Amino acid sequence: MPRIAIIGTGAIGGYYGAMLAKAGNDVHFLLRNDYATVHENGIRVDFAKGENFTLYPVNAYKSSADIGVVDIVLIAVKATANDQLTDLIKPLIGENTWLVTMQNGMGNADHLAQLFGAERVLAAICFISLNRIAPGHIYNLFNGYLSVAEFQGTPSPRTAVLKKLFEDAGIKCDELPSLDETLWRKLCWNVPFNGLTIAAGGVTTDVIVNSEELSDLARKLMLELQSAAAAFGHTIPDEFIEKQFTLTRKMGAYKPSSLIDFLEKRPVEIEPIWGEPLHRGTAKNIPMPRLEMLYRLIKASCGKF
Amino acid sequence: MPRIAIIGTGAIGGYYGAMLAKAGNDVHFLLRNDYATVHENGIRVDFAKGENFTLYPVNAYKSSADIGVVDIVLIAVKATANDQLTDLIKPLIGENTWLVTMQNGMGNADHLAQLFGAERVLAAICFISLNRIAPGHIYNLFNGYLSVAEFQGTPSPRTAVLKKLFEDAGIKCDELPSLDETLWRKLCWNVPFNGLTIAAGGVTTDVIVNSEELSDLARKLMLELQSAAAAFGHTIPDEFIEKQFTLTRKMGAYKPSSLIDFLEKRPVEIEPIWGEPLHRGTAKNIPMPRLEMLYRLIKASCGKF
Repeated sequence: MPRIAIIGTGAIGGYYGAMLAKAGNDVHFLLRNDYATVHENGIRVDFAKGENFTLYPVNAYKSSADIGVVDIVLIAVKATANDQLTDLIKPLIGENTWLVTMQNGMGNADHLAQLFGAERVLAAICFISLNRIAPGHIYNLFNGYLSVAEFQGTPSPRTAVLKKLFEDAGIKCDELPSLDETLWRKLCWNVPFNGLTIAAGGVTTDVIVNSEELSDLARKLMLELQSAAAAFGHTIPDEFIEKQFTLTRKMGAYKPSSLIDFLEKRPVEIEPIWGEPLHRGTAKNIPMPRLEMLYRLIKASCGKF
Repeated sequence: MPRIAIIGTGAIGGYYGAMLAKAGNDVHFLLRNDYATVHENGIRVDFAKGENFTLYPVNAYKSSADIGVVDIVLIAVKATANDQLTDLIKPLIGENTWLVTMQNGMGNADHLAQLFGAERVLAAICFISLNRIAPGHIYNLFNGYLSVAEFQGTPSPRTAVLKKLFEDAGIKCDELPSLDETLWRKLCWNVPFNGLTIAAGGVTTDVIVNSEELSDLARKLMLELQSAAAAFGHTIPDEFIEKQFTLTRKMGAYKPSSLIDFLEKRPVEIEPIWGEPLHRGTAKNIPMPRLEMLYRLIKASCGKF
């Protein structure tokens, strides 16, 4: 049985870690602020649709050194904490340790590859709506799926192992031919919905899907991403874009993670969600006036000018 | 001596009315919320550069009927109150009464023309930075100039009279060949600076001029207006656009009127400043992606979706 470490036990790390542990896996959680609560009460997961559960006891740790070497590291810290990853991950790495980023946005796998070597790096891209509503308490608002991919190259024995691991824990999962393409696709949701909910003054996603003018703006942002992705050889079909609206309508009055970070004055993942696709797209001479504007407005709203 | 009524004694109406009255003109002020304060203490005008003064006593009125017929009506209510203008102006109108809009944005003169006939309508476009810092207390932060124009047609004996009236009161003033062109020019300031200060999360104008990325965004918005204005036969030179940045740098940490309205949860002049130029430009097939986005974000931020 693989030894698994969860780095960053927020909504994503807490949820997927708890699901894996509940299925009998050997999971070890690194926590900072929520350590005491989780150590004492475990991790509670509630579902809008599904059976609530509490994982208890939890293998909770305050430092990576206490966890020691593992087979799989699931990385779920905010990308704004990427500069701390060297220290957080080093003690976990053995000869064959896999590093799987579950983080939002573009550039995270590249960052891990730079730090620890590209051959270790995979990604598990989360299409799901989770909120951490209190320390150690996660709410699953909308159950989507997980896409696993190699950082470099096509599906491999490793992605097959990851897929089975998650599926055996009750998580819908697929393997993807290209991480890069998956990231562009995921940004088709994050760029407009995480972005416009902030830039429109702190609205929930239902305000966007219920307004013709804001939906049109969201769609135009997605089309800019579609053009940029195409410049890198990735096809994002129009139906995929329309599907984002159908999915989002089901979420109700959802607050994307970036909006929550913004409202609670925590660091927002500006560069991976808006900066990186803008820089990549404009480097290929793709006009992205709306993404550029959104990126700058969010930076300014976060006091970055 | 012409009998003058000021409709809307906020920053603009209070300032220009007080300047005219101080110079010996026969000026009558319509007030609502600030009536008691102004009746008791007069209108106080402070200057960043210039000699402060208080106009006292003030011909203050609670209703237009109490003012009666005048020769010149200076209209300085927020454009968001345009639906009240019929009642506010009717009692002031004699056979030859001039209606001079000093309001922000596009479409105000058109609205007056519809209500009272195009032949009565003129405009005095204010390039100035004023704040109403308390009831009956106005602060002149940056002294610009006034441009008077006929609603229809070129300078006339009437615009010459208005120009002299203002100049004799110590106000820099010029006559303009085209109201429409002047409005497009003024929007080159209002669209980006009133707009981005709101959409960037409530920053002052210095944040925009001090940031390369936000200045570039402001400039791109101005270039969209330049293209739209050109489609209507108006030339806005590049030097005019650059001058807006030079002027704004002198204003320091200025809060445009729309930002103040927004922060104080008062109605924002969304349609005249962003909606009207967008509708006019797109009707001529001018691509205005940034203005469209700004318009929609501000509408959403003001709870209009």
